[in-house]
Amino acid sequence: MSHIAEIIAVGTELLLGNIANTNAQELSQALSALGINVYWHTVVGDNAGRLREAVEQARRRADIIITTGGLGPTYDDLTKQTICRAFGRELVLHPEIVAQIRARYERNLHAPMPENNIRQAELPVDCVIFGNPVGTAPGCAFEEDGVHVLMLPGPPFEMRTMLEGYAIPYLRRLSQEVIVSRDIMTFGMGESRIEELLRDKMERMSNPTLATYAKPSEVRLRATAKAESVQAAEAMLSPVVSEVAAALGDIVYGVDVKGLEYACVSGLRARGLTLATAESCTGGQLAARLTAIPGVSAVYRGGVVSYWTQVKADVLGVDAGLLDAHGAVSEPTARAMAEGVCKVTGAPVGVSVTGVAGPDRDERGVEVGTVYVGLATPEGTFCRALDLGRRRRDILQNLAANHAFDLLRRWLNGLPLSI
Amino acid sequence: MSHIAEIIAVGTELLLGNIANTNAQELSQALSALGINVYWHTVVGDNAGRLREAVEQARRRADIIITTGGLGPTYDDLTKQTICRAFGRELVLHPEIVAQIRARYERNLHAPMPENNIRQAELPVDCVIFGNPVGTAPGCAFEEDGVHVLMLPGPPFEMRTMLEGYAIPYLRRLSQEVIVSRDIMTFGMGESRIEELLRDKMERMSNPTLATYAKPSEVRLRATAKAESVQAAEAMLSPVVSEVAAALGDIVYGVDVKGLEYACVSGLRARGLTLATAESCTGGQLAARLTAIPGVSAVYRGGVVSYWTQVKADVLGVDAGLLDAHGAVSEPTARAMAEGVCKVTGAPVGVSVTGVAGPDRDERGVEVGTVYVGLATPEGTFCRALDLGRRRRDILQNLAANHAFDLLRRWLNGLPLSI
Repeated sequence: MSHIAEIIAVGTELLLGNIANTNAQELSQALSALGINVYWHTVVGDNAGRLREAVEQARRRADIIITTGGLGPTYDDLTKQTICRAFGRELVLHPEIVAQIRARYERNLHAPMPENNIRQAELPVDCVIFGNPVGTAPGCAFEEDGVHVLMLPGPPFEMRTMLEGYAIPYLRRLSQEVIVSRDIMTFGMGESRIEELLRDKMERMSNPTLATYAKPSEVRLRATAKAESVQAAEAMLSPVVSEVAAALGDIVYGVDVKGLEYACVSGLRARGLTLATAESCTGGQLAARLTAIPGVSAVYRGGVVSYWTQVKADVLGVDAGLLDAHGAVSEPTARAMAEGVCKVTGAPVGVSVTGVAGPDRDERGVEVGTVYVGLATPEGTFCRALDLGRRRRDILQNLAANHAFDLLRRWLNGLPLSI
Repeated sequence: MSHIAEIIAVGTELLLGNIANTNAQELSQALSALGINVYWHTVVGDNAGRLREAVEQARRRADIIITTGGLGPTYDDLTKQTICRAFGRELVLHPEIVAQIRARYERNLHAPMPENNIRQAELPVDCVIFGNPVGTAPGCAFEEDGVHVLMLPGPPFEMRTMLEGYAIPYLRRLSQEVIVSRDIMTFGMGESRIEELLRDKMERMSNPTLATYAKPSEVRLRATAKAESVQAAEAMLSPVVSEVAAALGDIVYGVDVKGLEYACVSGLRARGLTLATAESCTGGQLAARLTAIPGVSAVYRGGVVSYWTQVKADVLGVDAGLLDAHGAVSEPTARAMAEGVCKVTGAPVGVSVTGVAGPDRDERGVEVGTVYVGLATPEGTFCRALDLGRRRRDILQNLAANHAFDLLRRWLNGLPLSI
């Protein structure tokens, strides 16, 4: 039997636009992976009447209702009593949970539990209790008339923790099949060209399926298989992933890899090399993306953000005459920046980016979108010259950084360096 | 008369969790500012039956319905015909819009317009046409039986552009009053302490109102006034903003300022100074946050990401003996990094951050959350020593960067340097 889910997010702050409903997105991904169709997202405020209406409309069209929010201790936290009224179920106080909440206040906040929080220990009779190790409000689940209702907290970190720890196991028991996906990550070819190459294949496939998702110059191909077990699904996916990777060739930078920088870090580890970065128009993005990766200090020494031309000379040692002759945004400068950062940091590999991110041309009249990426290695220095076109500044910065990571991962993997 | 709005986002990718519904958030903010209550968000897939159900349920409870998505050229773009069927309005082909779309394809993509795109030039009879200068699909609005329906594109940049250019002016004509807010931005005091200081004031206020929004150690106070005109609302807000800023003192870093780094850039401009950054555990975040600000090259020279200890010595010139004696995460090192980056870049002002972001202690056993922020200036070198506690790595990095910006903006404004 195919389940249909509706996600109801409770919270006036969502309707005021103070925050985006990221909980619904994360829940939808999780439900999708469990083979459960999500047909509706609803957001309603901290209002008992409208929340009741949302629950009533949901129970007519879905057999799994998941709510987020409204489990707090204050008077406008209404989820439990509204749902219990709708389903005719009583709320029961759990003294052991009161004790847990009291202990949490004393341990973490060194303060007595406000009496309001007792409400958080009231739960529907005969429910499955979902513990909350990172907050005070437990969640819960119960079934009534063929409809499963799950109540989760609103704060995203608490919701995510309870989703992983309790909600997914609960839902897994409802589902007869699993959905497993694998993402083939590519950089350097547009979505339409990729679809041309794979159209015949994609149209013939019904399980697994293949879908493309495009970001500026990055295209992710998701292969998705439905089966009775994770192992069976993975066995269906393996040959598909291999065929697609073979068809697309060098533009594939990884499977289930979070981004180009992750591919670079793996490549550096595999070859026992360390890296330094020298960036101008990307303003710190190369460094920030690398240092977000846990354990990256094994392969990343650091870098220089040479925003001013003078800093390219003073800190990276780029020859002042070269800068005068060719300008800050040029191939010789990109090469010199990459070689310079290797010299000053001792890293064997250096990546550089210099370009015009806009909105204006640079002081020499170089056009917006002109970018040079340099790569200094023990085998020589390379450069990729780019015209990324007139785009938004933040898109140009991101794209230039992607090109820098792409040049590096191609060299690390012995692939042709040009796209 | 008070309007009630419902936002319907159309798109299966939202229900699969591929993206978050940021359009609903942005629309809600805009409607809020116009004095229009948003009571419902609904997300439905590219399915005519369920989209029809969503529209029917919305027209029973809202008098403004705004849809996003489903205006594309493919067979699963269903918004216009579904809404027109629901409201009994015909679709009419606009040849001048066909011509515009053709021209757009030729000019930007150097390709002929696919014939599918003709559907995008069909619009409800007698509607107000919303042009789309950054995409191919025009939007539209019409009124039927007291209900206003607005249809906007799904891609967020197109939605946002059409919202500003067409939808907001359309809605402004419906609304009798305006809502204006001003955000008082603070750093360094917790939300509960701020609420204690202002509780009496906040409870007495009904128009304007004052609300607090907390992020890790940043608290934003939003003063909101409802009036018949923007000028009247602003006149109501001025004294409130002054009183709150006076009550809170030095922790206020700006009003309607996007972040601490913006306050720093303004301060540097005002004092005619330039800045360089030296960062370790923040890994490029200081530089990236600064270089995201348009025009920052007037005050920011660049910086060094000295991720490895050796790089602090080799690039920043921190004395090796000092590093040996005190370690990379120490007050002397923070001071030396700030002074060092000034020397190597020529900047009169330098900011540094060194710390342990986790999840593990550093090689000397320094605890997670230990951070030193250095500030080198023509008036001397200063340091803020912090114990930020055991938190998630990304939260610690963000908090450490905030402290660096806070130390700088206090010095720039002649305020006491410690919190």
